Amino acid sequence: MKSFTQLGNQFEEYLSTYQLPDNPSQLYEPLNYILAIGGKRIRPKLVLAAYNLYKEDVSFAFEAAMTVEFFHNFSLLHDDIMDDADLRRGKPSVHIKYDINSAILSGDVMLIYAYKFLEKYTGHNLKLFSLTTKTSIEVCEGQRMDMDFETRNDVAIEDYIRMIELKTSVLIGGALQMGAIIGGASEADQQHIYEFGRNIGIAFQIQDDLLDTFGTEALVGKKIGGDIRQKKKTYLYLKSLELLSASQTNRLKELYAVDGKMITEDQVEEVTALFRAAHVDVHCEELKLVYQQLAFSHLDTVSVSEDKKSVLRTFAEVLMGRES
Amino acid sequence: MKSFTQLGNQFEEYLSTYQLPDNPSQLYEPLNYILAIGGKRIRPKLVLAAYNLYKEDVSFAFEAAMTVEFFHNFSLLHDDIMDDADLRRGKPSVHIKYDINSAILSGDVMLIYAYKFLEKYTGHNLKLFSLTTKTSIEVCEGQRMDMDFETRNDVAIEDYIRMIELKTSVLIGGALQMGAIIGGASEADQQHIYEFGRNIGIAFQIQDDLLDTFGTEALVGKKIGGDIRQKKKTYLYLKSLELLSASQTNRLKELYAVDGKMITEDQVEEVTALFRAAHVDVHCEELKLVYQQLAFSHLDTVSVSEDKKSVLRTFAEVLMGRES
Repeated sequence: MKSFTQLGNQFEEYLSTYQLPDNPSQLYEPLNYILAIGGKRIRPKLVLAAYNLYKEDVSFAFEAAMTVEFFHNFSLLHDDIMDDADLRRGKPSVHIKYDINSAILSGDVMLIYAYKFLEKYTGHNLKLFSLTTKTSIEVCEGQRMDMDFETRNDVAIEDYIRMIELKTSVLIGGALQMGAIIGGASEADQQHIYEFGRNIGIAFQIQDDLLDTFGTEALVGKKIGGDIRQKKKTYLYLKSLELLSASQTNRLKELYAVDGKMITEDQVEEVTALFRAAHVDVHCEELKLVYQQLAFSHLDTVSVSEDKKSVLRTFAEVLMGRES
Repeated sequence: MKSFTQLGNQFEEYLSTYQLPDNPSQLYEPLNYILAIGGKRIRPKLVLAAYNLYKEDVSFAFEAAMTVEFFHNFSLLHDDIMDDADLRRGKPSVHIKYDINSAILSGDVMLIYAYKFLEKYTGHNLKLFSLTTKTSIEVCEGQRMDMDFETRNDVAIEDYIRMIELKTSVLIGGALQMGAIIGGASEADQQHIYEFGRNIGIAFQIQDDLLDTFGTEALVGKKIGGDIRQKKKTYLYLKSLELLSASQTNRLKELYAVDGKMITEDQVEEVTALFRAAHVDVHCEELKLVYQQLAFSHLDTVSVSEDKKSVLRTFAEVLMGRES
């Protein structure tokens, strides 16, 4: 049984020896670039951790870990174009460093490679391909919902939860299920571990939204207030609309109105103050806890020893406690 | 045994009953749009025709036909962004009718659906998934080469042939092989039918390039001279450089120089005259014939009756003789 850090090191080692084709160089260079600028590798580590619940030597699961890492990076390449995000992990995004066409085409080939890595798992092929397809479709649906929310004025809290579930959580669940499948887990275990991931993913996203407004830059690792600047209809915004007085609600809606105007830094402050007045942070913590507890109840049901599960339990606790 | 037209009608009927999800509507609408504006459905018909060599009732092969049609349309969505092509089949391209972000994301989900349609073929899953992945990677590599050629001054004829093989022909071969696989063809038959498609695809592209310059607008169905206007380094251009005098060669290179300037209509005429002076049309016909004969020799080797093969033979003859 290996720690999350050990699994991460093993994955990095495998990744560093993996060679994409040299040509056409302008097709594959952007893949090497995005993979080299890192990230936390949470998803591939989850594949290995779930596999490790059932099997000792995780090297058999490296390719499946590559599938989720490649899929995740494909989505970053395309999302960064769509979201007009110039920076990724503090470095120029692929469409800035190269160009938009390169980010589209290299993203495409990265998605196809995600499927390619699954070919070695004979016996599990259909199951793994179907899971990848189902998850990938859901992630696209989530991204589309997120884009649609920008111009919609009727986003309900349940729409928002569904969106983050699709855009973020199903891939966390899918990564874990993938590891469980190739580890030979029972159908029941596969489902529970998927649900553990899906629920912890939702909890994580709610926390991420909370920290985006109420965190400290040094600890969160990105500029505070990004969601407000982009007028994202997060749980903080939607719940505040429910909790605030009529005049405050109107003011908040006014500040978020889509009129093509950028929000000023003073207005970011004003929105933050309204969120604070609504005590929306307390509601975030409550909702986060609901999903966190749901997640753990599924982990409890997985039929392996507590000792083995501790890696995933610790992962979730660290993830949830990363700043308060 | 069904004619190409009958297979086309059956496919259209299946396609018209197939329902994509309704939501998120902005994700799936562009798919319905691009599918509705038609196209010749050559690739899905080839899947059905190859399957029909081995099995009578082609309905089992509809989903595999959808795989190649969805893949092909995904590549159109993304290529039209990259090539800045505002029209597709005489209608606004998806990124014009909707927007670039929609064309990217809906293209992504269309690629993923291409994989989804293969799930039903239990027993053949790995083979079909691998073929789809291999072909898809090659098509991306071909598109990248095509883009790279715009700024390269050292494109050799063999580079060009390799590019069209990857960008166009492998999908023709792959469509045929897919039909053969699910039809239960032997490994040898699968390879021969793939090679038939790959070679006929190359012959077809050479003819397409020839018609782009020397065809008649009414018969070809698009504006003549598009490749010259885009300064595409086609076989016509590359072979002319070999055949013309030093001064003509220099002039041709000058006209194609990448200096950001558009080529004028007078210059299109001048390039056409240079191509004509090189008698490059004769060389095109010769090269086309080489690949055509190679294609037919592979079809000859496929171990089904001549009678059954006649559909594919007629298809190739019609394709090659479409205008002269």
